Amino acid sequence: MSTGPLEKLSSNKTFGGELTKYKFKSAALGGLIAKFNLFLPANAATGKVPLLVYLAGLECNEDTGAQKGGFIGPAAKEGIAILFPDTSPRGAGIPGEDDDWDFGTGAGFYLNATNPKFAHHYNMHTHVTLELPEVIQDAGLPIDLKRQSIFGHSMGGHGSLTLYLSSPSKQYRSASAFAPISNPINAPWGKKAFSGYLQQGVEEAKQKYDATELISKHKDPVHILVDYGTGDKFYQTGQLLPEIFLKAAREAGHDEVQVRVREQEGYDHSYYFISTFGEDHVHFHANFLKA
Amino acid sequence: MSTGPLEKLSSNKTFGGELTKYKFKSAALGGLIAKFNLFLPANAATGKVPLLVYLAGLECNEDTGAQKGGFIGPAAKEGIAILFPDTSPRGAGIPGEDDDWDFGTGAGFYLNATNPKFAHHYNMHTHVTLELPEVIQDAGLPIDLKRQSIFGHSMGGHGSLTLYLSSPSKQYRSASAFAPISNPINAPWGKKAFSGYLQQGVEEAKQKYDATELISKHKDPVHILVDYGTGDKFYQTGQLLPEIFLKAAREAGHDEVQVRVREQEGYDHSYYFISTFGEDHVHFHANFLKA
Repeated sequence: MSTGPLEKLSSNKTFGGELTKYKFKSAALGGLIAKFNLFLPANAATGKVPLLVYLAGLECNEDTGAQKGGFIGPAAKEGIAILFPDTSPRGAGIPGEDDDWDFGTGAGFYLNATNPKFAHHYNMHTHVTLELPEVIQDAGLPIDLKRQSIFGHSMGGHGSLTLYLSSPSKQYRSASAFAPISNPINAPWGKKAFSGYLQQGVEEAKQKYDATELISKHKDPVHILVDYGTGDKFYQTGQLLPEIFLKAAREAGHDEVQVRVREQEGYDHSYYFISTFGEDHVHFHANFLKA
Repeated sequence: MSTGPLEKLSSNKTFGGELTKYKFKSAALGGLIAKFNLFLPANAATGKVPLLVYLAGLECNEDTGAQKGGFIGPAAKEGIAILFPDTSPRGAGIPGEDDDWDFGTGAGFYLNATNPKFAHHYNMHTHVTLELPEVIQDAGLPIDLKRQSIFGHSMGGHGSLTLYLSSPSKQYRSASAFAPISNPINAPWGKKAFSGYLQQGVEEAKQKYDATELISKHKDPVHILVDYGTGDKFYQTGQLLPEIFLKAAREAGHDEVQVRVREQEGYDHSYYFISTFGEDHVHFHANFLKA
């Protein structure tokens, strides 16, 4: 099944640039309609611009980061595009996919499912890493795909770190995350997702979809920034485990220049936390995207 | 009926300060539960801070501006608090109040209703100008109520301009608005609202609730900033009429230092427009709030 043509759903001028919502028939997601938002800064009118990919968390969609993250203003100043994908396929019609808020719809976990029940539709990994860049290129949008970085929140922070660390082609120059699920094979959210989506469950995830496992085996230098808040109830209840990720990074020889994990006193899991540090993350990526 | 005690519903650390959602039993709104958000910057821990009031538009609530406006970061830097009231009473149970998106629930128009059907509950004017300041003061929150300014969007821009221009006590030092309904007695939204809420309808509104009428009779110097976008479909269809407001201001002797109305090429009615100029509006008010 091939990817269908892009259709523009809406367009909003913002910070001198343009945020456009598109839809297309997604081959990666089994022929379902996929939506995404793309912010192009004003300078995209005169040449290709680098791309920052934002992966949102559980229950979110392609609008959440665009509306609440506070990323677009800083990206406009830096002359960087931002791609906001959705968080899962929508409307696959698989029994049970809408029963829980942390599994199925809105909870794609940025993996490719191997459980036959989900394998036809739940392929957000391919959707984000291969299909969306292809769609953007085919549409002639002014993006320089050789300059990509990635960031995300919670489940999307997990996505950001794992897509960055597992890309053999080094697709992304840098990765950052707000309150990422940093060691999902040891966290309830991750165990549930992997058990459902993957034929071999957590064992299979260990090889491909766990940021802590990946950083511990990663030899090349990395550029990673993580922020989490001590007031985050999901941090407090062991869903995020950023210290485990940090420990693994240090043990693998990645120093504080390569991997910065910052504990932010009193901040929680919400976009009020994310927006506080959003500008900082955009600047972090700009260092590499504009190098 | 008296106002009930404040109850804290949630609290989020953001930009070094704290956004807190409260609820209380509102006398102005006929004994219904009213909610609001209050952002206190970090410096409120050591002394009273000035207050900027944000009035949201149709269908919005106390969360909309806090989540999407991009105001909190700039306010935190300036050391200014922001109050985000709701846009109407909720759950009054008046027949028809939930039938339309532009009248009734979510559409209080920042007036005091005189039509007996609505007069017990729809008193957002009193709620914003008198009751909320009283509630804030009684709770001992660190706000300097002698330093208030006001801004808003669309219906809330109408609210901002009319509350500013009609306050005999000069409650607000400055007013600004994004895409305000600037001459509602001549616009479909305003005519509908005034006919419903006010016993004498549009004629009654002319005296109290029309920014263009008010500025034309206003003698004292004012501090007003208005932004609207040429891509705004509500501007294009005559709901906003900012040029009429501007013309009336000039004819009444208010020059471009007192009343600035800026046409923003290509921007629409959304928070993508508002957030673009949000920082600018906060800085505008800071000039007066910190003077």
